[in-house]
Amino acid sequence: MREVAIIGVGMAPVRSTSGKSLSELFTQAALEAINDAGVERIDGIYVGNMMSGFLQHQEHLGALTATALGKEGVSTHKVEGACASGGVAVNVGVKSVLSGLEDIVLAGGVEKMSGYSTPEVTTGLMMAEDRLRVGATGITFVGLNALIARAYMHKYNVAHESIAQFPVLCHKNAMDNPKAQFHKSVSVDDVLNSPPVADPLRLFDCSGIGDGSAVVVLAPVDVAKEYTDTPVKVAASAVASDALSLHQRPDVTVFEASRKASKRAYALAHKKPEDVSLLEVHDAFSVLGVMALEDLGFTRKGQGAALVKEGECERDGHFPTNTFGGLKARGHPVGTSGAYQVAELALQLTNRAGKCQVPNANVGLSQSVGGIGSTIAVHVLERMD
Amino acid sequence: MREVAIIGVGMAPVRSTSGKSLSELFTQAALEAINDAGVERIDGIYVGNMMSGFLQHQEHLGALTATALGKEGVSTHKVEGACASGGVAVNVGVKSVLSGLEDIVLAGGVEKMSGYSTPEVTTGLMMAEDRLRVGATGITFVGLNALIARAYMHKYNVAHESIAQFPVLCHKNAMDNPKAQFHKSVSVDDVLNSPPVADPLRLFDCSGIGDGSAVVVLAPVDVAKEYTDTPVKVAASAVASDALSLHQRPDVTVFEASRKASKRAYALAHKKPEDVSLLEVHDAFSVLGVMALEDLGFTRKGQGAALVKEGECERDGHFPTNTFGGLKARGHPVGTSGAYQVAELALQLTNRAGKCQVPNANVGLSQSVGGIGSTIAVHVLERMD
Repeated sequence: MREVAIIGVGMAPVRSTSGKSLSELFTQAALEAINDAGVERIDGIYVGNMMSGFLQHQEHLGALTATALGKEGVSTHKVEGACASGGVAVNVGVKSVLSGLEDIVLAGGVEKMSGYSTPEVTTGLMMAEDRLRVGATGITFVGLNALIARAYMHKYNVAHESIAQFPVLCHKNAMDNPKAQFHKSVSVDDVLNSPPVADPLRLFDCSGIGDGSAVVVLAPVDVAKEYTDTPVKVAASAVASDALSLHQRPDVTVFEASRKASKRAYALAHKKPEDVSLLEVHDAFSVLGVMALEDLGFTRKGQGAALVKEGECERDGHFPTNTFGGLKARGHPVGTSGAYQVAELALQLTNRAGKCQVPNANVGLSQSVGGIGSTIAVHVLERMD
Repeated sequence: MREVAIIGVGMAPVRSTSGKSLSELFTQAALEAINDAGVERIDGIYVGNMMSGFLQHQEHLGALTATALGKEGVSTHKVEGACASGGVAVNVGVKSVLSGLEDIVLAGGVEKMSGYSTPEVTTGLMMAEDRLRVGATGITFVGLNALIARAYMHKYNVAHESIAQFPVLCHKNAMDNPKAQFHKSVSVDDVLNSPPVADPLRLFDCSGIGDGSAVVVLAPVDVAKEYTDTPVKVAASAVASDALSLHQRPDVTVFEASRKASKRAYALAHKKPEDVSLLEVHDAFSVLGVMALEDLGFTRKGQGAALVKEGECERDGHFPTNTFGGLKARGHPVGTSGAYQVAELALQLTNRAGKCQVPNANVGLSQSVGGIGSTIAVHVLERMD
């Protein structure tokens, strides 16, 4: 069986208002990735995106971006898995190379959320849930995550102050990432005193709205060395799903899809959580970052916030987490965040993370969440030298 | 390298107004396919769809349909390649099995177009083109295809009467397909005298608006025999793209993506056009059916209509085409038509096509077109006994 490596990465900066079109955003990241890899020939382009049909009235992002890149002819399409679209697109790219039908593949995502009203974006985000049964109640996507937060805090007797450590960590890390959306330190008090969005979640518990694009270039391991001295092995790529809606689940404080996808990924990669040097998790809301640490096996249920508080998730801790700022502070253009995670891990594993670099980065894990945990993509990357 | 087979198929009837939701439509086809295959375990579900974000304000169709099927946990996502989404979703399913990461996979499509105004559907269809550059001119999707028809008729000196043979053939074939949207014989005169839509295209040159879903079950060839005595080999699955917009192409009377995808497919399948027993081509508009016969290598440019006129595309001809009625008369719920084609070929190759059955069906080819030829999926299926 083939093995797959990342041979190039590109990221547009996440901006609250980019002034760029979908095509321009994706092209910016893709050209950076293509130049990074030094590739000419491309066989496939897979574009993660969630909202373009609803917000921009634009589909067919595969042919749109392939044409903009001058690569018309390639196999291409859009990949949609709600807020996990970027992570799932990387999974599609990996499977395309594994299939033996394609060698050099671009995979990533793009999302443009600026220029629309809050009701428009709010409606767009609820496309991740069942519109007929849950959307019809009037609850928002933040509201659903607030239900999770409330249930989690109650079940495990965890205070908001503890969970608020997660966005504090992310904002701290993003200070060193020039491509981050937010360059602003926040304290636990800042989080707790920020305006309420959906109780108990406050503004600084929530990721923002922005534009962005991230792309990786994938190739079979046996040809990767032709392009770079530092390929990064994709040791595992796994996608799992869960019941679409919260009311269909026995316990809303666990993302079973996170457990399933990471279990598959650890098995494929022959790794355990303790082998992981750093991780990028989907902290669209503070509580999700905390839950991710638990569901991915880095600590027991209810102990995620403690791990952050003890400093274990800092860049010099045991499990450096969201080293470029995560969804909270690097930014969360929804359909591409999973691709940013993979690109950031690849930079870490090749010692190219600049001021965000963590020491001894050998194995990285990313977790990208679609909807309220209904689709989850997990990747395990490994340095090859 | 693995080989892939189809072990089950399911199709919802195409209806102008189904009264069903996206989830209900997909579930109907998927359950039929699952029962046909007799499978319990499913590893992946890939859902082709173009318009759900725009029309239904519903994304996340992967988790939505997996949940409805009681298969939450699987790897799943939506696949969008405009009107070729269904064909591209089958390609994703095939690559997923080839990757070695998944064994039993559902791949297909779903589209719900009923219940919306003509301006809404018309705007939705233009999402296949560049909204900022071409959509902004006000031209419709039918208008773009009318430009192709006019250029084709002029360049090859082919009369509308000749092209009109194509919808006549499709309507004739659909009379025997209980799942077809239209059961109505039409003559060349009927086509020519039907109301104009976008000159030179008239109503009966154009496929209709409808709801539908088609799904196939894929498995590795070496396990397919556990489930069925009559697996159908996917001898080739290929997707190619072209410049998104007509004005970016040197010749609008040729779909280069059709040539590229079929060239790859013939090479993968070790077949030539003369080896093909029957084909399903993307006749969203009459002229596209005629062009497909040429671009796929069944005749020279300008000669497609003559092939139809000579009876070669009838069920008892050399190249039986659109044997269940094609997009024109079986129906064209845009994001799933490519999956109907593959499902119909599989029925033909297992002698289960009922009154639509063609004799000596050994090798089938399908061609699914996204946008104005900007993404094209080609499949070659082969009977295995």
